[in-house]
Formats: sequence, C-alpha cells, structure tokens
Amino acid sequence: MKHTQASLSFHKKLQGKLEIRSTVSLKTKKNLTLAYTPGVGKAVEAIVNDPQKVNDLTIKQNCIAVITDGSSVLGYGNVGPEAALPVMEGKCAIFKEFAGINAFPICLKTQKVDEIISIVKNIAPVFGGINLEDISAPRCFEIEKRLQNIGIPVMHDDQHATAIVVLAGLINATKVVGKNLRSCKVVIVGAGAAGTAILKLLNYVKIKNIIILDSEGIISKSRQNLPDYKRELLTISDPNNIKGELEHAAKGADILIGVSKKNLFTKSIIQSLNKNPIVFALANPDPEVLPSNAKKWGVKVIATGRSDYPNQINNALVFPGFFKGLLESGKTKITNGMKVQAAKAFASLIKKPSVDKFIPSIFDRRVVSTIAKQFI
Amino acid sequence: MKHTQASLSFHKKLQGKLEIRSTVSLKTKKNLTLAYTPGVGKAVEAIVNDPQKVNDLTIKQNCIAVITDGSSVLGYGNVGPEAALPVMEGKCAIFKEFAGINAFPICLKTQKVDEIISIVKNIAPVFGGINLEDISAPRCFEIEKRLQNIGIPVMHDDQHATAIVVLAGLINATKVVGKNLRSCKVVIVGAGAAGTAILKLLNYVKIKNIIILDSEGIISKSRQNLPDYKRELLTISDPNNIKGELEHAAKGADILIGVSKKNLFTKSIIQSLNKNPIVFALANPDPEVLPSNAKKWGVKVIATGRSDYPNQINNALVFPGFFKGLLESGKTKITNGMKVQAAKAFASLIKKPSVDKFIPSIFDRRVVSTIAKQFI
Repeated sequence: MKHTQASLSFHKKLQGKLEIRSTVSLKTKKNLTLAYTPGVGKAVEAIVNDPQKVNDLTIKQNCIAVITDGSSVLGYGNVGPEAALPVMEGKCAIFKEFAGINAFPICLKTQKVDEIISIVKNIAPVFGGINLEDISAPRCFEIEKRLQNIGIPVMHDDQHATAIVVLAGLINATKVVGKNLRSCKVVIVGAGAAGTAILKLLNYVKIKNIIILDSEGIISKSRQNLPDYKRELLTISDPNNIKGELEHAAKGADILIGVSKKNLFTKSIIQSLNKNPIVFALANPDPEVLPSNAKKWGVKVIATGRSDYPNQINNALVFPGFFKGLLESGKTKITNGMKVQAAKAFASLIKKPSVDKFIPSIFDRRVVSTIAKQFI
Repeated sequence: MKHTQASLSFHKKLQGKLEIRSTVSLKTKKNLTLAYTPGVGKAVEAIVNDPQKVNDLTIKQNCIAVITDGSSVLGYGNVGPEAALPVMEGKCAIFKEFAGINAFPICLKTQKVDEIISIVKNIAPVFGGINLEDISAPRCFEIEKRLQNIGIPVMHDDQHATAIVVLAGLINATKVVGKNLRSCKVVIVGAGAAGTAILKLLNYVKIKNIIILDSEGIISKSRQNLPDYKRELLTISDPNNIKGELEHAAKGADILIGVSKKNLFTKSIIQSLNKNPIVFALANPDPEVLPSNAKKWGVKVIATGRSDYPNQINNALVFPGFFKGLLESGKTKITNGMKVQAAKAFASLIKKPSVDKFIPSIFDRRVVSTIAKQFI
C-alpha cells in the first residue's frame, strides 16, 4: 500500500516521465527562421538531393522507437497500450539517462501481427532503431523476424537483452562455482519470449544439455500438439529425451533459470539440483524462489530480477549500451555473435566474480560504454 | 548560397532539433525503482483499473503527434518522409517553445489514405492530440474527416491554422481600410488544403461573395470534369457565376488571397482590384507579389508568409495555442465556432490595427495564452 502510494504520487507529480524539448532556443527571430521556415527548407533540399543526409541533419541517427502492443507487460500480461505506457516511458527515460539516446514510446492499439509490422515499417523514417517491447510470444518472434530488413536495427528487448544478461551472469557464476559452462546441465523454466531467447543463445555458445519447460512441462518429443515454434526448440534442447514435469528436469541440473512465476522453485526442486547449483529466479516482481529460502536450501549463487537483492538481472543493463553501439556503428542487423560479444564484455567488468557480486550494477558507469564499443 | 550554408551548419551542429529527456533523474536507486520496475507496476495497475488515469500518470495529456506523409512540404511538394523530418522537428520545437507542449514527429513511408488512417488510430494511445501536417489535397480532407471520432482532437494544420490566421488578419485589415468584412468581395487563388479551408471559414462567417481559383482558373459551374471535392465548393463560392481566369475574378475585388505560387499577382491584376484593396500573398518562400511591388501598384494593406516583412501570416501563430486550449480543456472535436473564436481573440491583441501592424508577432507572449484560453 505504501509502495503503491509512493509510485502513484511520483507518476502523478511528473505527469509523464518524458519531456520533448527543442535543442535550440526559438525565442530569437534568427533561430526561428533557421529552425523553421524559410531556413529549414535548405535542410529539406539537402535530404531530397542526398537521402543519407537525414542522418546528419535530423534526430534520426540518435532516436529509438520503443514499440509495444501492451500484450505482455511485466507480470501483468495483456494490459493494452495505455496501461503499458508508464513502462515504455521508463524504458525511454533509461535510454536517455544511461546512453544519451532519444527514445520515444509507441503504444499500439492493434495486436494483429500484420498491422504491427506494417506500422513499424511505415513509421521507421524518423528512427535509427526499433526496440520492440513487451509483445507476447509467439507473435513477438514473427514480428521481429519480418522486420529484419527494414534498413534499421530491430530488436525485441525481452528476448535478446534478457538472454545477453543471463549469458553474462552465467559466464561469471560458473567461475564462482568452478564449473565449465559448456558442460553444465541447464534447465530453463518458461518458454515465452525470454526463455526461448535464452535457450537459443546458450545453444549458440555450445551448451549441449539444456531442457526447457512451458506451463505443461518439459518440451519433449512425447508432447502431443506442440505448436511449430515450440517443436522447433527440440532440435536444440532435451538431448536425452527427458519428459515430464519440473522435478524430472531439475534432477542433477547445474543451472536452473526461471522466467515463469513466483514460488515455482520449491525446497524439493532446489535440493534435487547438482552440487553447487546456480539459480536465476527472474520472475518479476516475485521470483520463483526468494534468495533467503534458496540460501537456506543450499544455493550459494543466485540472481533475481529485483533491485533489492544482489546480482540483479535486468534488460536495462544491456539495451542502452547495445543500441548505442548499433546507432554509432551504423549496423542494421543483430547477430548471435554480437550478442555473445556484448555478454562477454559485460561480464568482464567484474574481475573477480563472487557469490555477492557476479553481475555488474546498472549504476556502474562502464556498463553502457563497454557494451557499445563492441560494435564500433 | 550563404543562407543554405547557414541552415545546413545549424542543422548539422544540432543533429536534430529535438531532445527527449527524462523528467526525473534515474541516477538514484530510489527513482529508478519508482520510474521502472518494480514501482512502475503500480502505475500500470492504476490504469488497468481506471483507463482515464492514463491522463494523470503519463505523458499523454500533454503530448501531440505531428504527422506527415511528406506529400506536400512547404514549397517543395512531395519530398517523402525523410526530407519532411526537419520541418516536422521545427513544428515540434515550436510546440514546446511557445506552448510547453511535448510534440513528436511521425513521418510516414506510406501515402495511402487507408493506411495513414489506420496508423494514426493505432498510435493514438500515447497522444492527447494529432496535428496533421503537409499532407496534400484532396487526401488531407478525407484523412482528417475520417479521424474525427478517435477520442482525441485531430487537426490538419495547413488547413485550419492557416484559415484562422487569415480570418484574424482580415478582421484587422478591414478595420485599417474601413470596410465591412462581410460585404467584401474576396478572391482566393489556390484550392488546395489552405485555400479550401480559408474559403470554408470565410463562408462560415457569412462572407457571401467569394471566388476561388485553382491552377485551371475560377472554380465555376462551367468547368468540366471538376472532382467532387472541388464541385462541392460551388455551393459556397462564385455566387455570380463568374468564369475564366484570375483577371476575370480579381476585377473589383476587395480582398485578394494567394496560396499558390510566386509572382502570380501582376501589376495589371493588382491594379484591377477595388479601391483600398487588401492583399495576402502567402506563397512561401516567394510570395505572389513582393510587398515592395504591391505598394508601388497602390496596395497599402499587405501580408505575406515571410518573417522579413511586417504582418507575417504563419500557422505557427495559431497551432501552439490552439492545441494548448484543446489539451487543457479536454475537447476532442474542433468546430468552426472554435476557429472563429480563436481568430477573433488573436485579432483583438492589436488594439489599433495599422498598415504596418495588423497581425500580432509570433514573439508576442500573449498570443498562445489568449488563443488557448478561448477553450478552457
């Protein structure tokens, strides 16, 4: 209740967490005639004659659209575009505060894949990049895929920024427990946007033994009626044909990653893991297991999505620097190689990973520049 | 050449005339957890429970989209979305500098009416109002009309802001020459967005004798193959069935308004007008007649679209205050009555109109608040 009041007063007082202002005073006739008619006409002519000039003469080259349809917002689900706006404003504010990037929220009234794709293509001229946000699976996969050739980089943050932070976290966490990441048995609970992207990135770095679960259990060959996008995951997961529930998957696992819902990791699940397990309980705001319980049950290395525990795994650690790198390098495509590069660079900011600190803080000023300069 | 260089250096130095920034510092953990997860979730919940709260807790209530398809930009015509961007940024910068409104440019890659309408509807959740800009006739008429019921005000600036400033200018100019506006014979040269809107607004204030021309001459009953949207204008124009060219229309006119192209008002046209004529030569950047020539040919009362002559007629005199009034009053529809109210209030800022000054300056700080408070 107290938290609710604090947040509402905060938001009400601000009446919006973003402000759009002119980069130059227009209170003099000289500036007004340069910024607007007739002076602005010369910038129009220059871009007509050389379309690339739009990158020099306008906001485009440092402007990101944060686009959602409000279908999968935080832990709230399908809340629609208006209720998604405070979250998107927060994202945009983070882009500016941490990376100096101008970002504007676009919250769409439609949730139809074709319409979303058409809108993004048609509003692209103003932007140097598109950050897709809080769009539910499986639509998010198709939307992102079909937007890869529009001439500016398009990234679904919930998938890739999350996967990058998780990979970075695992690189350091395995150092803490003294295990070889590639040899670890990994269990991912949740096969939505984040879970799927984590699986794909961990597979890309050659981790062979990964099991992924959705709300109906292990995604395994024995499952009837798996939709195509989940069936495809079988080529990179469940190599030993384990079937059944989380307790079947978790047994002997070295790494347990939750992107699902609160309290899912019970005492018996936790205690069935291999020795020195790593647990990332990323459900927000309430994790799959509270760090205090996990510790009691023998887990030393744990990360959550929350800022009030050590080792927070948060997209915001990655998306500002990642897009800064994209914009400054002019890259229009995002590859798995780039994601791994970003994860390694990010992880390397902690020289001696420990139980208490194996993921850098969002307030570490090196984070954004270190990630960005991987691409420049 | 010198002007070109000045404008390009200005735009290149700024790299965009807009900046989007956070209204609160996110460099502390407390603010970050309020603005973003987990605190932002309370704002999401509040809007889910009461959709109207989006107006209190987000940027929406003070945020305008400036939307163009780049089809009719300044004097340049159909330059497309990228080349239109510097102009839209200028508009947005003016919104902020003069009215404190956050405005963001949306430059669309499509010029299809149905697609534009669908996009505007679908991106509306973030905005408190839509300012359509530099969309060519006749598409601008249909687009604006079909967007009147989306729950937020939608105004095509080139039509209505122009018409409002022209009406205000005429209210004061007729005082200077001592004529009754309603009894004047008016000729409008140009039947695009601006010309059409001027005709409709002047008709609404009961000026009976108005003739409008397009590039093929007077819009008259005798014209074959008039498109429907021009044929409709006959019900409010050309009451005496004059046909032919500008020289047939201009003869004996009290008011000559050009929204067409440079140098169209020749010496013989000007000299065929009634005694004490009023000439508004609004083509940009080169007017239908230069004020120096018009004066030589006997015109005392003249206005142009240029800032380097007295009595500049510029949309920017109206759109910031008009939208401020709309946003603050919560009005979602724009009526002719509101436009006339705005024009009268704007005109009244000049107590004693004279040849040298019958239109207020854009730097007159009373302009925005005076127009805005008509609706509040």
